[in-house]
Amino acid sequence: MRNIKLVLEYDGSAFFGFQRQPGRPTIQESLEKALSAFFDRKMKIASASGRTDAGVHAAGQVVNFKTSSDRDLRKIQKGLNAHLPPEIVVKSAEEVPADFHARYNAKSKVYEYRAWNSPFRSPLTAGRAFHVPYSLDLSAMRRAAKHFTGRHDFRSFTSETAVLKGRGKKEADFVRTLKVVRITKVGSLLTFHFEADGFLYHMVRNLVGTLLEVGRGKRKPSDIPSILGAKSRRFSGNTAPSEGLFLQRVSY
Amino acid sequence: MRNIKLVLEYDGSAFFGFQRQPGRPTIQESLEKALSAFFDRKMKIASASGRTDAGVHAAGQVVNFKTSSDRDLRKIQKGLNAHLPPEIVVKSAEEVPADFHARYNAKSKVYEYRAWNSPFRSPLTAGRAFHVPYSLDLSAMRRAAKHFTGRHDFRSFTSETAVLKGRGKKEADFVRTLKVVRITKVGSLLTFHFEADGFLYHMVRNLVGTLLEVGRGKRKPSDIPSILGAKSRRFSGNTAPSEGLFLQRVSY
Repeated sequence: MRNIKLVLEYDGSAFFGFQRQPGRPTIQESLEKALSAFFDRKMKIASASGRTDAGVHAAGQVVNFKTSSDRDLRKIQKGLNAHLPPEIVVKSAEEVPADFHARYNAKSKVYEYRAWNSPFRSPLTAGRAFHVPYSLDLSAMRRAAKHFTGRHDFRSFTSETAVLKGRGKKEADFVRTLKVVRITKVGSLLTFHFEADGFLYHMVRNLVGTLLEVGRGKRKPSDIPSILGAKSRRFSGNTAPSEGLFLQRVSY
Repeated sequence: MRNIKLVLEYDGSAFFGFQRQPGRPTIQESLEKALSAFFDRKMKIASASGRTDAGVHAAGQVVNFKTSSDRDLRKIQKGLNAHLPPEIVVKSAEEVPADFHARYNAKSKVYEYRAWNSPFRSPLTAGRAFHVPYSLDLSAMRRAAKHFTGRHDFRSFTSETAVLKGRGKKEADFVRTLKVVRITKVGSLLTFHFEADGFLYHMVRNLVGTLLEVGRGKRKPSDIPSILGAKSRRFSGNTAPSEGLFLQRVSY
């Protein structure tokens, strides 16, 4: 059996997230339909680097699947693209060792969150950036972001459900190392850039929501260490909407 | 009467262009509906910097309208935005002298044309860039573009219809001064940047179509002077699709 790694780009607006759900359009469903159509047999992916939520976009989601077909990689890529809806594309296809697993082997991930920071909405970024109409103190946000970098228990920045479900989990399951948090602004487009060894459920959106509250003056940069220390979702900010979130890259 | 200048951004995908057409959604119709709703009386714009075609976007279209209302400009802007569909926004509103005319007073315009130059389509730029799957010789395109800069009769780059309609027109009506033609590429995103004292109907899209044929090797940069000299649409390249075109800015 060959093990094939695919890099996907998708516009998440039209989907109920990556993972299959009965009766709802998802990325996984579209991809497995395309695989099945192309290989002319029932196909499933072996794994994905992670699930993206409903409405979240990807410029570099990674999945892998197994096949005994000896078809050329370029043909597989072209064939899948012909069967995929316009919102999803296979950017690259490569053969990887049999033990490659898109989720377990992921060493680091990069997410970007985009916000349109202007009093007026922008039709040309609509659906691909969150509209933040109030003015923001970027310097305060950058000072707050510094507290997030490094190795921390990020339990305060995942959903309560994720924590409840994780009752049997070890402390370590909520610990992640955030290598980079960078905030840039070009014109009205504000971009949050995150790189970590992994992210908890809703983590990027909760970090962004909290940073926006710092930018608005509702919280101080110096509040961040105690929010992290509280290890409870009740202490962090609102979850920023999915439309601004992009899974940019997964490294192995 | 006050004369009010508006700067508009719009996603042209859903519209049959700027100009009113019976029974079809247009930018002008949406804008005049919003003006009429806000001022609670039948309103029309006095002029627009130009008509954009069906599917063409704008980051900085300019229009003006007359009103005897003494309402605050900020309130007018907010009110219009509340009445406009999500695809259109008023970016700014300012009071201008009574004789200001959005079309006649325009000194220069900037258009951008965006192309996604990769063998594979990009869902995240879909509708906002034209997909060019073949490889391009950028250096040849830049050499060709140099021939376009300056003052020329651009009759070869407007539609035949526009030329036919213009039978009674003077030679000068097809002469424009192209101040800037710049081609940049960031990743797979290719951007053509045009600045001129004015543009003929379909001119940017025909210039881009011709430059793409140069990039593909179908034409040589040195062919451009004779295409310009021919003063006939039959000698220039295909019209590039509207989805990649953006009216960026109008200067007065």
